[in-house]
Amino acid sequence: MTAAVRPRHGEARAALLAAAVEVIRSKGLHATTVDDLCVAAGVTKGAFFHHFASKEDLAVTAADYWSQSTGALFAAAPFHDCEDPTDRVFGYLDFRASLISGAPADYTCLVGTMAQEAFETSPAVRDACAASIFGHAETLEADLAGALSEANIDSDLSAASLARHTQVVLQGAFVLSKAANDPAVVLEAIEHLRRYLECVLGRSAGCEH
Amino acid sequence: MTAAVRPRHGEARAALLAAAVEVIRSKGLHATTVDDLCVAAGVTKGAFFHHFASKEDLAVTAADYWSQSTGALFAAAPFHDCEDPTDRVFGYLDFRASLISGAPADYTCLVGTMAQEAFETSPAVRDACAASIFGHAETLEADLAGALSEANIDSDLSAASLARHTQVVLQGAFVLSKAANDPAVVLEAIEHLRRYLECVLGRSAGCEH
Repeated sequence: MTAAVRPRHGEARAALLAAAVEVIRSKGLHATTVDDLCVAAGVTKGAFFHHFASKEDLAVTAADYWSQSTGALFAAAPFHDCEDPTDRVFGYLDFRASLISGAPADYTCLVGTMAQEAFETSPAVRDACAASIFGHAETLEADLAGALSEANIDSDLSAASLARHTQVVLQGAFVLSKAANDPAVVLEAIEHLRRYLECVLGRSAGCEH
Repeated sequence: MTAAVRPRHGEARAALLAAAVEVIRSKGLHATTVDDLCVAAGVTKGAFFHHFASKEDLAVTAADYWSQSTGALFAAAPFHDCEDPTDRVFGYLDFRASLISGAPADYTCLVGTMAQEAFETSPAVRDACAASIFGHAETLEADLAGALSEANIDSDLSAASLARHTQVVLQGAFVLSKAANDPAVVLEAIEHLRRYLECVLGRSAGCEH
């Protein structure tokens, strides 16, 4: 290929990572080939192997890219404007619900999908998915700790455990939503999670955002 | 091959279905080849294609086989001896927790794994997984309806929705447990689900089983 049509360094890498998110969310990690990714990204195989040693290497990098891109999305979400930590917890649920539309491949989770598939065959992919899922859970801990403190309950519940549970419910909702091919399954699960947190925290949301 | 070593009709089919559960739970559906399944089952490729038109056909049949084998396991579980429906609901959670040991591939769910991977690429597999997951949820509805009736709460909560949520939590716990490579993640999620049901139903378990 000529220099005129060769994608620039950063562009090819970014295009491959964006393609990985899209293609792997649709067909899974193992069914996705390097050729699929090159076609989706509009880059050559040479460009792929310039940036990534293997499909596994790309998957590990894609998990980190997913953490960064979704992390930025959540960091910019309006619920952070609520002054009260309990309100921010419920605002997080509202924001998650607002993201559920379209087909399952559009709103489900890259790293949950990859973890489900590669947990035993690729420890590197598994660990990258764990870092993404549990890392996101950790971003909720401060607000949950504040909410638990406000609720002043006599319980051994930890903010870390509750934060993990929010991700359990979302990941499980994605699985059932894929099976049913229906986004309503996720919205229903978020309402159960809201009811659980209302029970644990002793109140419902009090902040519009 | 000679007639002397050819597996009998039912044996080869049963061996392939048992192999499918084991191999697909470990490496996922797409990574599992017909050769993998034949080796694991100790049957020839000819035997495979005598019983199944394709790997997809086997996967669909395996989802049904999974429903039947796990259905029998749950039907025989001791919690059914509790006289009270609320106690049976909590007994179901105890029984689920008792199944969590070993490696993730041993205690996680065949149909959740396959749904996550094949939801877009194989509607037949997706629908078979949905039938298994939502069919299992339906087996919990009668006890949950009895428990909700006993609790006599003013709520729009339905037994069907609560039953689905139990499966959301379990499937999500399997995903996070695979990512963390740790069965404790599932036990923690079951305790959150227990606390939620205690909140909704207004009481905890009162039957040893």
